[in-house]
Amino acid sequence: MVRVAIAGASGYTGFELVRLLSAHPFAQITMITSRQMKGQKLEDVYPALKRHCDLVFEEPDPAKLAAASDLVFTALPHEAAMDIIPGLLDLGVKVVDLSADYRIRDAAVYGAWYSTHKTPELLKEAVYGLPELYREKIRGSRLVANPGCYPTSVILASAPLLSAGLVDPDSIIADSKSGVSGAGRGASLGVHFCEVNEGFKAYKVAEHRHTPEIEQELSVLAGRPVTINFTPHLVPMTRGILSTVYSNLKEGVTAQTVDRAFEKFYADAKFVRLSRRGELPVSLQVRGSNYCDLGWRVDERTRRVIVISVIDNLTRGASGQAVCNMNLMCGFAEDAGLSSAPWQP
Amino acid sequence: MVRVAIAGASGYTGFELVRLLSAHPFAQITMITSRQMKGQKLEDVYPALKRHCDLVFEEPDPAKLAAASDLVFTALPHEAAMDIIPGLLDLGVKVVDLSADYRIRDAAVYGAWYSTHKTPELLKEAVYGLPELYREKIRGSRLVANPGCYPTSVILASAPLLSAGLVDPDSIIADSKSGVSGAGRGASLGVHFCEVNEGFKAYKVAEHRHTPEIEQELSVLAGRPVTINFTPHLVPMTRGILSTVYSNLKEGVTAQTVDRAFEKFYADAKFVRLSRRGELPVSLQVRGSNYCDLGWRVDERTRRVIVISVIDNLTRGASGQAVCNMNLMCGFAEDAGLSSAPWQP
Amino acid sequence: MVRVAIAGASGYTGFELVRLLSAHPFAQITMITSRQMKGQKLEDVYPALKRHCDLVFEEPDPAKLAAASDLVFTALPHEAAMDIIPGLLDLGVKVVDLSADYRIRDAAVYGAWYSTHKTPELLKEAVYGLPELYREKIRGSRLVANPGCYPTSVILASAPLLSAGLVDPDSIIADSKSGVSGAGRGASLGVHFCEVNEGFKAYKVAEHRHTPEIEQELSVLAGRPVTINFTPHLVPMTRGILSTVYSNLKEGVTAQTVDRAFEKFYADAKFVRLSRRGELPVSLQVRGSNYCDLGWRVDERTRRVIVISVIDNLTRGASGQAVCNMNLMCGFAEDAGLSSAPWQP
Amino acid sequence: MVRVAIAGASGYTGFELVRLLSAHPFAQITMITSRQMKGQKLEDVYPALKRHCDLVFEEPDPAKLAAASDLVFTALPHEAAMDIIPGLLDLGVKVVDLSADYRIRDAAVYGAWYSTHKTPELLKEAVYGLPELYREKIRGSRLVANPGCYPTSVILASAPLLSAGLVDPDSIIADSKSGVSGAGRGASLGVHFCEVNEGFKAYKVAEHRHTPEIEQELSVLAGRPVTINFTPHLVPMTRGILSTVYSNLKEGVTAQTVDRAFEKFYADAKFVRLSRRGELPVSLQVRGSNYCDLGWRVDERTRRVIVISVIDNLTRGASGQAVCNMNLMCGFAEDAGLSSAPWQP
Repeated sequence: MVRVAIAGASGYTGFELVRLLSAHPFAQITMITSRQMKGQKLEDVYPALKRHCDLVFEEPDPAKLAAASDLVFTALPHEAAMDIIPGLLDLGVKVVDLSADYRIRDAAVYGAWYSTHKTPELLKEAVYGLPELYREKIRGSRLVANPGCYPTSVILASAPLLSAGLVDPDSIIADSKSGVSGAGRGASLGVHFCEVNEGFKAYKVAEHRHTPEIEQELSVLAGRPVTINFTPHLVPMTRGILSTVYSNLKEGVTAQTVDRAFEKFYADAKFVRLSRRGELPVSLQVRGSNYCDLGWRVDERTRRVIVISVIDNLTRGASGQAVCNMNLMCGFAEDAGLSSAPWQP
Repeated sequence: MVRVAIAGASGYTGFELVRLLSAHPFAQITMITSRQMKGQKLEDVYPALKRHCDLVFEEPDPAKLAAASDLVFTALPHEAAMDIIPGLLDLGVKVVDLSADYRIRDAAVYGAWYSTHKTPELLKEAVYGLPELYREKIRGSRLVANPGCYPTSVILASAPLLSAGLVDPDSIIADSKSGVSGAGRGASLGVHFCEVNEGFKAYKVAEHRHTPEIEQELSVLAGRPVTINFTPHLVPMTRGILSTVYSNLKEGVTAQTVDRAFEKFYADAKFVRLSRRGELPVSLQVRGSNYCDLGWRVDERTRRVIVISVIDNLTRGASGQAVCNMNLMCGFAEDAGLSSAPWQP
Repeated sequence: MVRVAIAGASGYTGFELVRLLSAHPFAQITMITSRQMKGQKLEDVYPALKRHCDLVFEEPDPAKLAAASDLVFTALPHEAAMDIIPGLLDLGVKVVDLSADYRIRDAAVYGAWYSTHKTPELLKEAVYGLPELYREKIRGSRLVANPGCYPTSVILASAPLLSAGLVDPDSIIADSKSGVSGAGRGASLGVHFCEVNEGFKAYKVAEHRHTPEIEQELSVLAGRPVTINFTPHLVPMTRGILSTVYSNLKEGVTAQTVDRAFEKFYADAKFVRLSRRGELPVSLQVRGSNYCDLGWRVDERTRRVIVISVIDNLTRGASGQAVCNMNLMCGFAEDAGLSSAPWQP
Repeated sequence: MVRVAIAGASGYTGFELVRLLSAHPFAQITMITSRQMKGQKLEDVYPALKRHCDLVFEEPDPAKLAAASDLVFTALPHEAAMDIIPGLLDLGVKVVDLSADYRIRDAAVYGAWYSTHKTPELLKEAVYGLPELYREKIRGSRLVANPGCYPTSVILASAPLLSAGLVDPDSIIADSKSGVSGAGRGASLGVHFCEVNEGFKAYKVAEHRHTPEIEQELSVLAGRPVTINFTPHLVPMTRGILSTVYSNLKEGVTAQTVDRAFEKFYADAKFVRLSRRGELPVSLQVRGSNYCDLGWRVDERTRRVIVISVIDNLTRGASGQAVCNMNLMCGFAEDAGLSSAPWQP
């Protein structure tokens, strides 16, 4: 059994971590923190969790976290994460960081899209926690940067194509659609039910902070710098991301080549499922699970391939993937605590 | 390990049974049937279940079902259930019936609200599968009639009050609100997204078939015949039932008397949670779980008590309760396979 | 043409007033105010209204409002309304007040449910703006208290029964369900999309402030004091209220007596539509309109009548009724500017 | 006053036509037809329309339609439309056809995507009813082919860019998202509330029939053949389309060039509104109206322009545009009967 703590447990990713970890066969939640909810019982904030976790929110103190746990999930805002993580590592605790602070390897890029990085030396050590790309590195790591929700969906949709050199890297357009829980639990006009419900919108077009994270990993896969268009949209639903990823096929690439690239790339992937030929995945079929389901269509008229990628933004896009990373870091089965079927309807 | 089969597995309660049973520690699904989907793979009908159940829908043949399993869940329309169940029992199989066919003990009442009963002799043997009322009887039974979704929510809301004699049985009004999945997976104008979404309606006012089922159990609890008003409504959401149950307090009954009655009645209930004083449960806090959460308020101005009861209609209102009944019938822990936390947000 | 101003125009009732009045044949909006949005163009806050109203939000100054308009709609929080209304009346302006400040005739009752009233002398003069009950008084009034959304739905459902003496006034239970826009446009956790969506809840059970307003009008109709249970619920939809109103029939009252009472009471009502026998109204059928649609069912088993009442909470429950009251106060046709068909689907 | 009939009035576009036309200052609905609903009163099928139209559905007979009306809206399935329209024209009636039958000028293209055309000779005469492109031709026409919903949103988003030659026509990708009402009122599993709600999906990727219609008009604008990727998606909401349209900027084109192109192209457009610089339109801001609102962003990193286009699929995407075409054909003001503000929230 590994003792785990959750720093910043009051939001939706915190809830999802508690939901998954409270049923995990090899993990025990020993501490939860929240500045805002300090002193309150978790079950009073979330009556849903009554009988599943009887902890009380505490102040996020590194020494106490390190004393109470072997591994800490940091579900904090960016900047707050890098304030606490170096201290945790110094105290010998492993960290899965759900913020953006350790995802970008280049401090200058981080600086351009976020703010000046305070511990750039740790960026080299941190492993980008996408198991399909970095499984072995994650196993040996003490600091895993859990990927963003959109990047998870877009990178997994593009990896087989870029890695096999089937598409023009400069042609990639990722049109992504997310449920509202991705915006977090904070109240604002933008998440007011009546402003979201029955409407659809694009936001942060050509300027969303997940762009450099996606480009970093696509560049690794392509073996050269990749610049893309990434457009996030808000869907009037609570959970789920669907990304529609367009790219131009190189000459001679056929539908069969594409099929084989996906099958080969994900042959051993526990949490990637490929749709039957002719079918495309829908967001509901992965809800509540750690799956990324993929389907694609080759359009001979335009010589483009269109990949459809679906995940649950809170599970595969955040807390489920974080638990998966913990599993790898602790030597457990990759799917320990993550084997329940998706929720439908 | 118990081998279980699901007859009529293609609908939403069938999906929910597969979801729960595929992760159950002591059960193995060995056969699923569906006339309509015969020959199709479950994972092709429900891609969500890929890697969780690799069965193919078969014709619902009693002999094959009995050969393949120790216990059958019948998730069939009423009348179809009683066509197949006697044969299954004769072949030595236990049955949890999710239809209405064995819920009403009086064949005349069944006849008045449904149709002529074909096996009235079995009505005496069947046990009404509400564990909070009939736990011991369920343990020894070979035929359990799984309660309706609305009745589960209304009976659990009323039981402590009637059993302690705190309210006038003639004054009970149950105003219930359900998500759309209660209507099943069949396509019709009534469940068309655009006819349901952004709207709210009452239906089958003063004539819904769950009325006699509720009255039967409330009468047992009150020790005298009880007639109620039960009004179902349709909420534009997928899962969940909230029932608001009104009744007139008898003279001298105080808020404290009511509190104590609920606490005592549900002292040992694994799947009933009482809200903190001053709080009321909301439907989201039990989604995907087998809980029935209860809260209440005494109105001194009108001398009525208002009980709020929430369940997930597909889990506690159908498949979760069915699994719980299987657990009891097979000697497993009551919450085996049912211990995951609710889904939120 | 009447010149109208809207004080407190930035919320949902303000938007709805602009929507209706910008298309009104006899009214012209000359001023809109909002402390919070002061200096901003309406079309920048609500791009939907571009080309329909080119006004800029101003500070709510009584003298300027009076100079600019013949009639002011006050869509302000309670207490803020009674701070400004006496001054407007002194300056010769007519007022339709959408707050609760002038709905309760008895200052002591207002004090018990809200706060100490600052201008109790005006309570006698103010007319309760439900045209079906007070059409003539509204015509001659300079201060109309626009009814609350829930009270509109409950009073119109009960009026024919009480006025004809068909039911026991002590038996009335109003179980109401509202869309989220009734909570206003302010951001809070309670209206966060992910907290509301896919869930259903009761709130302020036995303590909602609309209770005394309903009881006041039911008492007038019954000719004796009436105390009721009123339970509001939140539906995951934007607009609409459905109230389910239960009452015990007096001896000898038949379904036909009830039918005739409704038909007679609403024989001339422009904005009340009665469902065909055997049908019940659904909330979608009145969306965006000023209608209150009514249906009912007599349950001979329990000797209760159940009335279903549906309105759009922002139109009939607020701004549409306010425009209707303006029409009456200004001598226009009751349905001027209110004659468009409801929105469906 | 023009007398109008609606052939195929029982679906959502039929409802929307009745809603708009029943309040139109210069039109009178004289006949509605529906094979399926024949003999039923409109208000019994749609209680929302009670007091707004008292017609009864009749059999769709060309001679009766021609006798009763000056202009017929055909809201029929494709193929059914071309069965009836030639007869109507022969009888001297004007037609606005909401089906796809007369949108494609090339019978071979129609044949490839739909079926063999029965009256190819009429294709030359029919005018594509997008007023921003063909206002003058519509004025003199007796047969207007009302555009599809997706094409309306995509063509209006692309027209200024192509017409000014600012983008590479081969680079256009239109990623569109629609509410469920676009699927019509017929019941099917695909529009079952529980299959749509809380989910998001792409459909008919690289094979949707609106593709040739979009390409036809973009080719006219570009002055050369254009092939595009068009991907429709289903949003869990009732009304609205948002299209995100990507294209590669030609060398030297700046953000200012793009701004000026849009401003010039839509300088006189009654029903196109351009967002303020820095803002993007959201689907809710046009709901219930005939507007197409447009915003865009130039991404210097990738040298692409991303245009966001929003319409109400039932109004601008079908019935509102049809009424606008009627207005032009009959010499009325372009916005007669279409001047109400959008519905929000």
